[in-house]
Amino acid sequence: MDLSAYSVRTDLALEAKEMAANELGDNIPGLESETDEHEGIRITKIKVASPEAGQAIGKLPGQYITIEVPKLRENDSDLQNRVTTKLAQEFAAFLQEIGVTKEHKVLIIGLGNWNVTPDSLGPLVVENCLVTRHYFELIPDQVSPGYRQVSAVAPGVLGITGIESSEIVKGIVEMTKPDLVIAIDALASRSLERVNTTIQIADTGIHPGSGIGNKRKGLTEEILGVPVIAIGVPTVVYASTIVNNSIDLMASHFHRLTDQTGQILGMLDQLQEQERLQLVKEVLAPLGHDLLVTPKEIDQFIEDIAHIIASGLNAALHEAVDMENVSAYTH
Amino acid sequence: MDLSAYSVRTDLALEAKEMAANELGDNIPGLESETDEHEGIRITKIKVASPEAGQAIGKLPGQYITIEVPKLRENDSDLQNRVTTKLAQEFAAFLQEIGVTKEHKVLIIGLGNWNVTPDSLGPLVVENCLVTRHYFELIPDQVSPGYRQVSAVAPGVLGITGIESSEIVKGIVEMTKPDLVIAIDALASRSLERVNTTIQIADTGIHPGSGIGNKRKGLTEEILGVPVIAIGVPTVVYASTIVNNSIDLMASHFHRLTDQTGQILGMLDQLQEQERLQLVKEVLAPLGHDLLVTPKEIDQFIEDIAHIIASGLNAALHEAVDMENVSAYTH
Amino acid sequence: MDLSAYSVRTDLALEAKEMAANELGDNIPGLESETDEHEGIRITKIKVASPEAGQAIGKLPGQYITIEVPKLRENDSDLQNRVTTKLAQEFAAFLQEIGVTKEHKVLIIGLGNWNVTPDSLGPLVVENCLVTRHYFELIPDQVSPGYRQVSAVAPGVLGITGIESSEIVKGIVEMTKPDLVIAIDALASRSLERVNTTIQIADTGIHPGSGIGNKRKGLTEEILGVPVIAIGVPTVVYASTIVNNSIDLMASHFHRLTDQTGQILGMLDQLQEQERLQLVKEVLAPLGHDLLVTPKEIDQFIEDIAHIIASGLNAALHEAVDMENVSAYTH
Amino acid sequence: MDLSAYSVRTDLALEAKEMAANELGDNIPGLESETDEHEGIRITKIKVASPEAGQAIGKLPGQYITIEVPKLRENDSDLQNRVTTKLAQEFAAFLQEIGVTKEHKVLIIGLGNWNVTPDSLGPLVVENCLVTRHYFELIPDQVSPGYRQVSAVAPGVLGITGIESSEIVKGIVEMTKPDLVIAIDALASRSLERVNTTIQIADTGIHPGSGIGNKRKGLTEEILGVPVIAIGVPTVVYASTIVNNSIDLMASHFHRLTDQTGQILGMLDQLQEQERLQLVKEVLAPLGHDLLVTPKEIDQFIEDIAHIIASGLNAALHEAVDMENVSAYTH
Repeated sequence: MDLSAYSVRTDLALEAKEMAANELGDNIPGLESETDEHEGIRITKIKVASPEAGQAIGKLPGQYITIEVPKLRENDSDLQNRVTTKLAQEFAAFLQEIGVTKEHKVLIIGLGNWNVTPDSLGPLVVENCLVTRHYFELIPDQVSPGYRQVSAVAPGVLGITGIESSEIVKGIVEMTKPDLVIAIDALASRSLERVNTTIQIADTGIHPGSGIGNKRKGLTEEILGVPVIAIGVPTVVYASTIVNNSIDLMASHFHRLTDQTGQILGMLDQLQEQERLQLVKEVLAPLGHDLLVTPKEIDQFIEDIAHIIASGLNAALHEAVDMENVSAYTH
Repeated sequence: MDLSAYSVRTDLALEAKEMAANELGDNIPGLESETDEHEGIRITKIKVASPEAGQAIGKLPGQYITIEVPKLRENDSDLQNRVTTKLAQEFAAFLQEIGVTKEHKVLIIGLGNWNVTPDSLGPLVVENCLVTRHYFELIPDQVSPGYRQVSAVAPGVLGITGIESSEIVKGIVEMTKPDLVIAIDALASRSLERVNTTIQIADTGIHPGSGIGNKRKGLTEEILGVPVIAIGVPTVVYASTIVNNSIDLMASHFHRLTDQTGQILGMLDQLQEQERLQLVKEVLAPLGHDLLVTPKEIDQFIEDIAHIIASGLNAALHEAVDMENVSAYTH
Repeated sequence: MDLSAYSVRTDLALEAKEMAANELGDNIPGLESETDEHEGIRITKIKVASPEAGQAIGKLPGQYITIEVPKLRENDSDLQNRVTTKLAQEFAAFLQEIGVTKEHKVLIIGLGNWNVTPDSLGPLVVENCLVTRHYFELIPDQVSPGYRQVSAVAPGVLGITGIESSEIVKGIVEMTKPDLVIAIDALASRSLERVNTTIQIADTGIHPGSGIGNKRKGLTEEILGVPVIAIGVPTVVYASTIVNNSIDLMASHFHRLTDQTGQILGMLDQLQEQERLQLVKEVLAPLGHDLLVTPKEIDQFIEDIAHIIASGLNAALHEAVDMENVSAYTH
Repeated sequence: MDLSAYSVRTDLALEAKEMAANELGDNIPGLESETDEHEGIRITKIKVASPEAGQAIGKLPGQYITIEVPKLRENDSDLQNRVTTKLAQEFAAFLQEIGVTKEHKVLIIGLGNWNVTPDSLGPLVVENCLVTRHYFELIPDQVSPGYRQVSAVAPGVLGITGIESSEIVKGIVEMTKPDLVIAIDALASRSLERVNTTIQIADTGIHPGSGIGNKRKGLTEEILGVPVIAIGVPTVVYASTIVNNSIDLMASHFHRLTDQTGQILGMLDQLQEQERLQLVKEVLAPLGHDLLVTPKEIDQFIEDIAHIIASGLNAALHEAVDMENVSAYTH
């Protein structure tokens, strides 16, 4: 989890697009999006086709798929299975679209920290992925058809290792020569409702915020030499964004109720969103610092979504894994 | 952790008193309080001496000690040791004041759920307490002087056991006949800054909120037949109270800046606090529900404070445990 | 887990019967047994019908069902599902046989210690059981048909609580008035191969060994006032029994090879089994103490078998839970 | 933990030397050793000075330090602190002897698997080490004197990652250019008494057994290009070695008792040790497989010794860390 994520407005392209649309209107040139919703699962595909479109929404050019499942935290195993299958299908199609064939070797990187629950998504996914590279290396003639060469590493976090994840991953990539890296990361979101209900897939790799300076490196094709797909799930929210978001909601709530256009929230109405967020942050600062918060039930939520992602990847990466009965392959 | 805690305004007497003072002024008859601060540890003793004072602040008559250590989350082992010693001293004095002698047998109850991190405070404390009752029962003549008869149980939560904690505890009290029950519980607070930085000790026992009806029972002298001291630590905050609290802060921030008394926050200024909280809850409702949130680093915070409380209790309950070197007795 | 279990020869009736048969021959009056094996699952039902038969095998009169699944540690989810279904069926039949009706209220007790992996079976089962008692208490008219009133508690261990489990359970039984107690416990076995591959069900309750004196109490109908079914799984072995057991195997191995009847193992051949075990214990004593050991992979094994037992109980206790798809109800 | 360790006779030079001495006598050319014992801590330094000496004991030429603390499992925090200080002193002296200066950069590698308790030593040590490399990289002018450049990675195990640890480590070494690698590993021992009571330091690196073929690679200077110090702790024992070891003990026990030199254990007496071990393995084989076992209390033992090793390394590697108060620097 990259703390500098806060300095960018959001880790999610979907939220970035919504924010941009609020300011710039719906029609941003070079920005395409389509949404499909079915039985509680909404899938939005966003294509940022030009650098201008990227700048408009503060996201790199590339393709983004967002899977939103508002009821995913309700412990419904049926829904979880459907999401897993859907993720597998979308991910397989995504691989095909960007030219990944079934001979391509994949390295899965689980970013984050085992010992901080909302940050443990990546390592948990790694633990549940079906890895096969060692069989291809040690007993290549005994590997059944339908399996791809897959490896998976959780490199740890800077505070524990003293080494940037991107350096560790670059070393592993150079030793093992995968054709594709898939990086799993926990994200910060703008709203509590997204925490552990939203999955984003992007072909842009992982870019740390610019806050800490250009010394921090990302996981990108530029750095690693192979394409990088990022899978992210919001697991935390800044307290300040909850507050700011709620003020927004209150403003529109009042406007609806009163049908007024005047200064319903007084001075708050006059502020631009970024100014107001800055204000909220200033106000919260004396309270210690602007804390990242997570739902009380995070232990269970993280386990559930790690299982969904690992199972989805297993089915998308290995033809031999049944898309409809994906859960059987993880513990 | 009692979810109905939300329907009362706060679990902390200190917060309740502050809120009442905002509305009623500082001079509430029957309410005494004194504060002492030393090297980053602030101790406030509140005595609710009359039912009227209790009603005014929404707390039962009784004695409340609050230990506030704003920097307790900063992983400073020196400070943690000082807080432990202070807790031990205050708790020992509290025991003496309410007439607990060194012959009195104590049963420690750790409320909460092992598997939900912010809710695991009670079970973690139980695990680290120095229990001795079995020695008194099995080999009474070999127990060294300076040890009190102590037992400790984590009864689990209703959703796992199907039994109210108070029923389980009542059964254990009737079998083992302690003279005093000490109940440890995770609380909901009004502000993020208090999470795992504040410890409250109260001689009033634990009272569930009235929300779920009179079928839910507390841990009180009335029900258990022996006095009950409650030790509580805020480990979660409702998202709505973060928002509401922040709006307060913004209002006073603006007032300070502008030196105005007018309608700085528009309609928000005109609402009473409870009305505004109600509004915030309504606004947050569509986002799923009004989530309880906790800081991202809760795993470490909970371990640290459980260690402080267990060590403090060990020193306060057993004369043979050195108040200045309390940590050596827990693992 | 009761360490005094060691002073009795084995916690498993099946092993006790085999040991007795070695000495007394197959035909022990008052001892009935039948075995059924199907697709890797062997079920043995032993009835100890008389006190004499009990004395002969060192087990209390009563009924014992043993489910042996040698391949249960091989991480085969198909086999695990079949064992769960089989356990559910056998347990349901067992309940019927001893007169438990579907109106009878059940209290499940998970003995053992959360923090010692091979000892955590009981608490893990409790955590995964479907409890309903609180619904019957709080919203009786909304409980769907097909559910029984079930509660579940993990009382902790003497070293943590200072209170005998039997006292805690007796207190809970008196408060909640169940008609039946089911107690889950981790056992010591005579052989490593049984660890986490064998499940024993007995209607005799749980009797601590006599080693520590009559102050330790069991979970029995006599003490609790309601019938007690014990479900036990061997999770540890004494190092001395591994050694002793292996010497046995070597002796018979040599005898087979050499077709001799002479003194193949020299002095070891001349010793009675108990004498030899005593010798092995003496020999191992200087090495620290006669350690209880467990397989290296115990973390995974314990999780798997706890899941099997909880799922099996859920299906056996609630008609509404499908016997063929039992796993869906636990997390 | 390297399972092929079994095919070599023991992971510990000390045990190898004892075994060789039994067969070849005490005077093996090229093998030097000295032992020092003080207050329950025995330190043995073995120098394997020639390839012949290495062949005689089945260990590579190099220096080995063994720290034996038989009472280390008895939960005595005073003893643990003394062992930590001793380890720090010995390790610092060892570094000096092999020419490591305080400018040399160190990479700590914690081998093993988070999720298998007896195998989690390496990752637990990594988690508690004081890493500083990122400060040297990001804010070099703010690093206090007395700190060395240290990084630490837990690369995971082949079954989870699909990549040999040595490949991952080689990649990291090439990216980060340390001057020394310290690798922490859990070992298999010949005797239960050594489990979590013995620490071995060796300057030979880590060599996988030859069992699986030359495809498996070690962590050695040859492969990594920098010196590798291995720190190992036995955390498991093969069941067969417990049995074999016990038979030895019984044989000498009988011989002492009877003062006989004849065939006390019959055919077992006539077998060479390796033949007998082979026999024991054959006999245990049908029981599943020759299981690796670990003491029941392994969870606590592993935590304790990981803390000792991490604290010892912190003090040995950073001059600024006080050798006498080492524990304060880990959590």
